[in-house]
Amino acid sequence: MGSQATKHPAQWVLQGANAASMVPGSVPYGLIEGAAIAIDGDSIVWTGSADNLPDDYHAWHRETLPGGLLTPTLIDCHTHIVYGGNRAHEWEMRLNGASYEEISRAGGGIRSTVAATRAASEDDLITSAQTRLDDLIAEGLGAIEIKSGYGLDIENECKMLRVARDICQQNGIVGKTSFLGAHAIPAEFAGQADRYVSHIIEDMLPAVVEQNLADFCDGFCENIAFSKEQIRKIFEKAKSLGLGLRLHAEQLSNSHGAQMAAELGALSCDHLEYIDQAGIRAMAKAGCKAVLLPGAYYFLGESKKPPIIQLREYGVEMALATDCNPGSSPLTSLLLVMNMGCTLFALTPEEALAGITRVAAGALGLSDSHGTLEVGKIASMVYWNVDQPVQLAYPMGGNRLQGQVRNGQWVAK
Amino acid sequence: MGSQATKHPAQWVLQGANAASMVPGSVPYGLIEGAAIAIDGDSIVWTGSADNLPDDYHAWHRETLPGGLLTPTLIDCHTHIVYGGNRAHEWEMRLNGASYEEISRAGGGIRSTVAATRAASEDDLITSAQTRLDDLIAEGLGAIEIKSGYGLDIENECKMLRVARDICQQNGIVGKTSFLGAHAIPAEFAGQADRYVSHIIEDMLPAVVEQNLADFCDGFCENIAFSKEQIRKIFEKAKSLGLGLRLHAEQLSNSHGAQMAAELGALSCDHLEYIDQAGIRAMAKAGCKAVLLPGAYYFLGESKKPPIIQLREYGVEMALATDCNPGSSPLTSLLLVMNMGCTLFALTPEEALAGITRVAAGALGLSDSHGTLEVGKIASMVYWNVDQPVQLAYPMGGNRLQGQVRNGQWVAK
Repeated sequence: MGSQATKHPAQWVLQGANAASMVPGSVPYGLIEGAAIAIDGDSIVWTGSADNLPDDYHAWHRETLPGGLLTPTLIDCHTHIVYGGNRAHEWEMRLNGASYEEISRAGGGIRSTVAATRAASEDDLITSAQTRLDDLIAEGLGAIEIKSGYGLDIENECKMLRVARDICQQNGIVGKTSFLGAHAIPAEFAGQADRYVSHIIEDMLPAVVEQNLADFCDGFCENIAFSKEQIRKIFEKAKSLGLGLRLHAEQLSNSHGAQMAAELGALSCDHLEYIDQAGIRAMAKAGCKAVLLPGAYYFLGESKKPPIIQLREYGVEMALATDCNPGSSPLTSLLLVMNMGCTLFALTPEEALAGITRVAAGALGLSDSHGTLEVGKIASMVYWNVDQPVQLAYPMGGNRLQGQVRNGQWVAK
Repeated sequence: MGSQATKHPAQWVLQGANAASMVPGSVPYGLIEGAAIAIDGDSIVWTGSADNLPDDYHAWHRETLPGGLLTPTLIDCHTHIVYGGNRAHEWEMRLNGASYEEISRAGGGIRSTVAATRAASEDDLITSAQTRLDDLIAEGLGAIEIKSGYGLDIENECKMLRVARDICQQNGIVGKTSFLGAHAIPAEFAGQADRYVSHIIEDMLPAVVEQNLADFCDGFCENIAFSKEQIRKIFEKAKSLGLGLRLHAEQLSNSHGAQMAAELGALSCDHLEYIDQAGIRAMAKAGCKAVLLPGAYYFLGESKKPPIIQLREYGVEMALATDCNPGSSPLTSLLLVMNMGCTLFALTPEEALAGITRVAAGALGLSDSHGTLEVGKIASMVYWNVDQPVQLAYPMGGNRLQGQVRNGQWVAK
């Protein structure tokens, strides 16, 4: 049942449950009723109905589950889980009637997170991020993207990225890191955005790449952050250094960043509440994924939703993620993200589950190994005490996880 | 630390944590830093700063916690956790584009829950409700209100109420039950609402009271359910039989039910999105609690919020609850309810915590024993791994519960 870290033979067959394979096709969820999944080492070598299991696998060790559902391991493809400090207090001030000015005077906002992150040791950052990662893993997380962006200088951006790499490794989770120097303008560059952009290009990016700390370069393209032209310069440099690209785009207004990023080959553009048709078309043409972040939409009390119907129409694939961060989305539940995707953005439950499995894998460049249960993929999956996939997205609260297989072995609870 | 069900001496002192006593006064949350709580049997006999612990208690067994926060046990004062079947499928149909007519033809809506509940045995109902109750208990629930309302005939309403009583007793939880025959008009009375109301008054209420199955009589006063005058007749009879009163009022329109219920002495009116000033004034005058249900507001995609500012202004105390039910609020997390109360309705975090402790106790007539940590109350409390109370309402996902004391003893995890 997966409650112990049972050591299996390298070759075994898992059966007795339904499997939402998430392989696209005519069957919703790629659902296999009464599935068998043959595992060799860390890889899936056969999937299908247990009734059709080929003779070759009949001699392998078999584990029969008492019903339930298997899904691919979950993937959170947009997070800021590494940070210092806590912003609950300023939220309370605001709800108690304090003005933004009062909160700002009290040191609130992203500046407080930058100060606390700079002051924190790597051990401090690992300890606080571990709590958030524990929440995600308890719901079946197997891969995660983690951004920097609260250091805003070479030393502290590198510190954050090292912590991100280390914590994934310590937890046996697939980790992808994004350098987000272009998250905000640090106090020491106040009023000198272009100078900070040059510093990112000339100093920070080369340092990050030289230490091999990042898989992607990210940016916050918004009228309160960086312009499309500033981000373009950063992205061109990042691309020349071999980094993949992803962008926070059109969250609060339309800066036309998504179109620019898609044209530069970004794997994803994220948020997208204000994206227009030109942006959608560019994303579709480039195969760039849309990463929707309903937690931030909910927590900030926004009313403009991303244009789901048009994204669907143009064939832009939609991922969902927590956007876990200290200020605008203190969210550590991918199950709740699925519910929010359906309830707030009217995604279908199948789109929601694809959004934290198959499409999230695509957004992180992990499609070869993760995102679906099919031959050739890594045998990392979640076992749920539910009958049908919709029962993962429907409830608010609770967690029907019964066990997790990671790299071909059950994980200890 | 509460991870085992440690047997203490009957007289002991719990210290080392802060305590959000929720006793009203000048200190937010009634917070006691470095608290000591002296417990004799199942009762609290002293609270205050550990530095001021009177000599009398120095010889008692002391347990010192390593920091953290104590709160009163949580109370969910409006639930429908006992029901048969599952409505996830019709939600998926809707999100996949089915019309209400198609869903209705497929047997959707409350009728499907009534059919499944009538078909279910008491054991079936206990098994399915236990899963939901487990979720709530895992977050510190110590008392709950459970409604009938999916039986809609004598036999099945009584069955639901028996299950509600039994499951609370089996779990060592304080349970209050509400007879909600006036939830919907059953198929066998279609088009004959007044005849069904007479059946409730003449047959159902007496049967429920005779078997002592309900503490309260509840009703759904709404243009799609029962009119104010119909509910008034039911409530007058219920009152004459000794039941307390509570009402689903002004959720989708203003039926002026809250004013009527308050004037009849109802303990709470619930939902209240459309309540007007006359209703608020009547509730204030009668000391009737407002029970706010942000989960239903969120899940139904409503945009009209209850008039928090006016409720506050008039001094109507506000509770929060899950409204856990199969169709409009499949929600089993009081932590998430707190977050929703703040995020969606702009309650303060202190109001949110009061809403699931002190005010919820008031709404259930439990103020003498529950709702605050103070002398004379039952020693039932929750121990959290957080520094400050706001950190309970701020996160979405996760659960920082470390242990629970119930009736003066740690509860096994």
